[in-house]
Amino acid sequence: MGNAISAYSLNDFQLVYNLVSLAVAAMLGTFVFLIFQRRSVAPAYRTAITISMVVLFIAAYHYLRIFDSWVEQLDGVLPFNEGYRYVDWLITVPLLLAELVLVLRLDKGKTKSLITRLAVASILMIALGYPGEMSPNGSTARIVWGIVSLIPFLYILYVLFVEMTKSLDDQPAGIKPIVSGLRWIILITWSFYPIAYFIPVIDGGVTGDVIRQSGYSIADILAKPAFCLLVYLIARRKSEADNFSEAA
Amino acid sequence: MGNAISAYSLNDFQLVYNLVSLAVAAMLGTFVFLIFQRRSVAPAYRTAITISMVVLFIAAYHYLRIFDSWVEQLDGVLPFNEGYRYVDWLITVPLLLAELVLVLRLDKGKTKSLITRLAVASILMIALGYPGEMSPNGSTARIVWGIVSLIPFLYILYVLFVEMTKSLDDQPAGIKPIVSGLRWIILITWSFYPIAYFIPVIDGGVTGDVIRQSGYSIADILAKPAFCLLVYLIARRKSEADNFSEAA
Repeated sequence: MGNAISAYSLNDFQLVYNLVSLAVAAMLGTFVFLIFQRRSVAPAYRTAITISMVVLFIAAYHYLRIFDSWVEQLDGVLPFNEGYRYVDWLITVPLLLAELVLVLRLDKGKTKSLITRLAVASILMIALGYPGEMSPNGSTARIVWGIVSLIPFLYILYVLFVEMTKSLDDQPAGIKPIVSGLRWIILITWSFYPIAYFIPVIDGGVTGDVIRQSGYSIADILAKPAFCLLVYLIARRKSEADNFSEAA
Repeated sequence: MGNAISAYSLNDFQLVYNLVSLAVAAMLGTFVFLIFQRRSVAPAYRTAITISMVVLFIAAYHYLRIFDSWVEQLDGVLPFNEGYRYVDWLITVPLLLAELVLVLRLDKGKTKSLITRLAVASILMIALGYPGEMSPNGSTARIVWGIVSLIPFLYILYVLFVEMTKSLDDQPAGIKPIVSGLRWIILITWSFYPIAYFIPVIDGGVTGDVIRQSGYSIADILAKPAFCLLVYLIARRKSEADNFSEAA
């Protein structure tokens, strides 16, 4: 819960607005790309691609809602609805984690146990962050819920990093550097979220809010469209390694 | 940043509005064409066609936003948002350059190096043009940022022209004239952009703004739908030269 929109300058307002619009374009553009490229990967990887498409479609929907909510607060009837981001994450984060595990193609028991643990941890992370997000910028509640939510956040990153490192030996030669790079990309892009969350604790004014909103939008662009394109690239390279080629 | 909308005559206002609407129709029409013709080219060219589709879809989204923003400025709540064009170019220009390189089918190392250099130069070009575009019509800032942005602009055209000329020898006989013509079409259509950008320096009034907005819309119609159809034509002719025919 941030400052009233009347406190924003036109530049501040438009920066958030343009980044939200960029997020819509990135989600929809990647969604369109995957619709038509889905059959360019072997059938074994297509479920992961479909999950990407679901994530991008749901995120595009929420970013369209965020865009409208951001503009409509100018009417003074309703405040900006921060809830859209949390509802979006509640659905898309477990899906993104599941597709990552699927594309790594670990053994069945491992896959199931990983997806379950990561899904539970991500739902906890988001549910615990939400009450803090709805608290005023400098409040103790924002700090306390934020710290509690960091526990499942760090657990997820730890599990992902360890498991992806372990899986490196089983990946075909051409894919190793991509999977290895992906570990770091996940670490870096995910770190945007706690930074954006805690910025209003340091700067409770409009600048803090603008950084938070912009930070979340940029993080979502990296963690969804950019991440889904990397998953596609891994699936495409693995398909090529299996001598798969698209039908005429 | 141009003149207030209250300074426009109805004719001026409607000329921009109708050209923006024409751009929406051209983007969506070409998008629909490629959806259904994608499988008429050999699998090797389909990624380039998909990239065209992503570009056209993202551009259609932005032209719909531009259309709404152009009309909504009449309410006097928010000014026209020039940012949409730059956000659009930031995504679509690197993609258009990448698909052009892909359809030329140069060797792998060359392809990767060209796409990287062209993507970096195009992002620089757009990022440097933006602060100038947001400056008043006759300002020094518009001139200086414009000139700085011309450096990566000229670099891109130079690299494209040289590389496309070099690739002519490797193109099948029937495709040579198309690739050769495409070099000139790129040079001519891209030259619309700096002209549109600098017009408000010469004419700071409404006429300058109308020429700029119309110029950008016409340039985008040439550089996106028209360009993507030429890329399709090259892919189709090359597929025929490889004796490819679509499955029944």
